[in-house]
Amino acid sequence: MSETTILTTTALQERVEAIFRKAGLNVIQAGALARVIVAGERDACKSHGVYRIEGALRTVKAGKVKPDAVPELALEEGSAIVKVNAADGFANAAFELALPKLTERARSSGLAALVINDCTHFSALWPEVEALTAEGLAALVMCPSYATVAPTGGNKPLLGTNPFAFGWPRPGKPPYVFDFATSVAARGEIELHRRAGKPLPEGWAIDAEGNPTTDPEAALAGAMLPFGGHKGSAIGTMIELLAGIMIGDLTSPEVLAYLGTTTLAPFHGELIIAFSPEAFAAGRPGNPFARAEVLFEAIVGQGARLPSQRRYVARAKSEAEGITLTAAEIEQLDRLLALGLDAVA
Amino acid sequence: MSETTILTTTALQERVEAIFRKAGLNVIQAGALARVIVAGERDACKSHGVYRIEGALRTVKAGKVKPDAVPELALEEGSAIVKVNAADGFANAAFELALPKLTERARSSGLAALVINDCTHFSALWPEVEALTAEGLAALVMCPSYATVAPTGGNKPLLGTNPFAFGWPRPGKPPYVFDFATSVAARGEIELHRRAGKPLPEGWAIDAEGNPTTDPEAALAGAMLPFGGHKGSAIGTMIELLAGIMIGDLTSPEVLAYLGTTTLAPFHGELIIAFSPEAFAAGRPGNPFARAEVLFEAIVGQGARLPSQRRYVARAKSEAEGITLTAAEIEQLDRLLALGLDAVA
Repeated sequence: MSETTILTTTALQERVEAIFRKAGLNVIQAGALARVIVAGERDACKSHGVYRIEGALRTVKAGKVKPDAVPELALEEGSAIVKVNAADGFANAAFELALPKLTERARSSGLAALVINDCTHFSALWPEVEALTAEGLAALVMCPSYATVAPTGGNKPLLGTNPFAFGWPRPGKPPYVFDFATSVAARGEIELHRRAGKPLPEGWAIDAEGNPTTDPEAALAGAMLPFGGHKGSAIGTMIELLAGIMIGDLTSPEVLAYLGTTTLAPFHGELIIAFSPEAFAAGRPGNPFARAEVLFEAIVGQGARLPSQRRYVARAKSEAEGITLTAAEIEQLDRLLALGLDAVA
Repeated sequence: MSETTILTTTALQERVEAIFRKAGLNVIQAGALARVIVAGERDACKSHGVYRIEGALRTVKAGKVKPDAVPELALEEGSAIVKVNAADGFANAAFELALPKLTERARSSGLAALVINDCTHFSALWPEVEALTAEGLAALVMCPSYATVAPTGGNKPLLGTNPFAFGWPRPGKPPYVFDFATSVAARGEIELHRRAGKPLPEGWAIDAEGNPTTDPEAALAGAMLPFGGHKGSAIGTMIELLAGIMIGDLTSPEVLAYLGTTTLAPFHGELIIAFSPEAFAAGRPGNPFARAEVLFEAIVGQGARLPSQRRYVARAKSEAEGITLTAAEIEQLDRLLALGLDAVA
């Protein structure tokens, strides 16, 4: 077995932040990006951990994201919408800036939305969801992606893999959180099948002529399919409408046209809706948090799983024992720190 | 071919309203129920048309809905939540009472929610969605149902078929609307297979032991499955949380326990979220309604369908030519009008 290194989350945060600072990101951009990368690594979400640093740096190097952006918060009296302009930076710093105001509005109005505009999205939605559940709020989060998914009945890429995420706070426990692509599979999974020379499961994709295919190459040249047939396709379309068009930001085909590739982090907006269960349940019988536990127990009691549980098990282990990185990962961190943007193509 | 009768929507509205009045419903309950039934019949949604009258009457006769309920609107200054208590009547009258206030709040705050509590839900969600799109608002609507669906990985009914509906206004055109069960199939479809002696498609249901089944009898004694695997299961769970627990109303298992049957209209709450695209898009480039048309054209342009189009074709025909009812349907309307609650078991 190869050598491994164990780091605390704080130590890993410092290293990743230093890499981004070296690459020209300002303090707020570097800190916010590093926090979501460390959270991914801590939760054993390897696809959202240190592996992602290079993609962020490539996007900076391609000039598609502003490394020193300073997001701007716009507040309107009496509105339930909080707007933050990422100023062409990453979404994460903009979200961190806006979070206190979103929380305050959701508590005072019962319901509030955060719109992030002009951002490069990076990378999962559950960090945003969990930031809100930590405040005792329920949250619904969505954003477009690149046009790689054909609507059901169609034959060409149009929708994105458009992630849809939701969270419900559980006092004293990690929250109920789901965060999934509205395509059957993520594009990365098709890429993994291609590299492994394995056929795709049926129903994942169509080829460039619109015919069902299990060939990863043909799928990458064709289109992915929405999850759940026409229902998933409708939800993917809803996300283009609400989290692209309604918020005055790019749709998935516009993102792809702007970037010209799916290998850089996508430039678009993000929509976050926060609910105060206390405000909604006020004056009604029962405590919503206690009642939710009854539902969760019934789910688990019949052998079904709650989403995100694997992440939480990994998180508890990381928090108790530190985060374990392989020698190759440590080497990569060292290389990125030494070379900055020169480390990426 | 048997004789048919053509009625205008106004004439059908009067007939259906008279039936409900005869059965003891007050003016607001009868009018609101009749409007959604006529809308279903007009749109050739036969399962939501005059066929449904009996189910509503059965629910009244069983004492599970108050026929003379007067809903009450509760308004709180500065809140983005409008609450209406249906006072144990049907949801429809409560919705009609609250609609102007919801519309006003959504326009002034950009985003607002309507909570309907203590209602008997009847019957599709698209009438609520379309009432909001007619005001130029986007809408997301959801509610629990009866516990008939097993969560993915489980083996017992727990979730409802929990409908999820969304609408986007299209100036000068019928809106973009979807409204679907978060189970693979509706319970009625399983019942239809049973009556026809036909096996179910794979993946619709499990038997009482939790094993996959294509036998409709076994499925009715077991559980239905969520659409789209664990993703649909998660969305169904979210609906229990947001539109049951968060709003202080019944979850699907609680509904089933309260009614003891799935043959009566369900008693629970409903959550409606209304978005003002103008408020969200303010200050951003492009008109959101014009941009949405580009997306819809791209969907239709590749041979995919927009949801609800069959309804709109039927609607245009009904509006031009009237609503055609069979002799049996007319006979049933006459019988219901003559007998009132005595017409149902």
